[in-house]
Amino acid sequence: MKNSVFIATSLDGFIADINGGIGWLDSIPEINKIDTGYTAFTSHIDALVMGRKTFETVLSFGIEWPYKMPVFVLSSTLKKVPSELKQKVFVINGNLIQILDQIHQQGFHQLYIDGGTLIQNFIREDLIDEITITIIPILLGAGIPLFGSHSKSLAFECVKTTLFIDKIVQNKFVRVRS
Amino acid sequence: MKNSVFIATSLDGFIADINGGIGWLDSIPEINKIDTGYTAFTSHIDALVMGRKTFETVLSFGIEWPYKMPVFVLSSTLKKVPSELKQKVFVINGNLIQILDQIHQQGFHQLYIDGGTLIQNFIREDLIDEITITIIPILLGAGIPLFGSHSKSLAFECVKTTLFIDKIVQNKFVRVRS
Repeated sequence: MKNSVFIATSLDGFIADINGGIGWLDSIPEINKIDTGYTAFTSHIDALVMGRKTFETVLSFGIEWPYKMPVFVLSSTLKKVPSELKQKVFVINGNLIQILDQIHQQGFHQLYIDGGTLIQNFIREDLIDEITITIIPILLGAGIPLFGSHSKSLAFECVKTTLFIDKIVQNKFVRVRS
Repeated sequence: MKNSVFIATSLDGFIADINGGIGWLDSIPEINKIDTGYTAFTSHIDALVMGRKTFETVLSFGIEWPYKMPVFVLSSTLKKVPSELKQKVFVINGNLIQILDQIHQQGFHQLYIDGGTLIQNFIREDLIDEITITIIPILLGAGIPLFGSHSKSLAFECVKTTLFIDKIVQNKFVRVRS
């Protein structure tokens, strides 16, 4: 069982600007032409777990549903999903241990954890095993940070680093539990 | 002329813990046995510029003065330095443009900018050309951040990445001015 994060941040560690915008991701237009490993990453993933806000953000794009894998949306308020997504999106709630139990019992063990709030909650309970961060090298100066506050320090190791088009770097970290 | 930063941060971007401590830098003891490029970096440096707090922190270590290069300490309150450092440490004050002028006029052009507050002030005025960050892969959860807030976003490029002992990653970014 493994919980993985695969995300882009600014050089100063933000996942969105101060208004929640991600237009700065396009500050290096070539990024859309290169493979930063998302397909390879998701090929090892059984299901995606996201928070309600991230789910609503994805819906707001008005594009075709972008995920082939089952998506679990963690929410205590969301009651239903658009009918065309009923076979693809499943609302769950409970504490993180409970929802992981539910997901594991359905046979999904390699999980992709997405969304700022949910990632921070997973980290706070030391439930993240792997974090791949693609750094878009821009200093935004303000925004929504990837990492939040927690009281216990957590040790990782960087196991891989990749430089793309001499501009963008991707670092992969794995949790070391002693 | 170039202003460079060479610094270590935690995975969540802190240069010191919440009490200003840096004991977590030793969370990977092997780091003291490897060359992460500090000597190569300083071989291209003419002088070091630091803030008063960083200067006082270095003095508080009670060790032999660790810098061979001239050190400029930016302070409006510090009046004198310990007598044994008089040939090595120079107090300057003024705004950043003024102090850079003073330093350049003395023939020092390749500058190493150090200390959390001073680095943030340099970035706020877009005066940093190069940032090398060695990421110690620990999530501290709280601390003193490397990057601060500013209103204008600044574009960089990652030009080099190096993985040390399959644990620690170092990313070098250079400012791109259009």
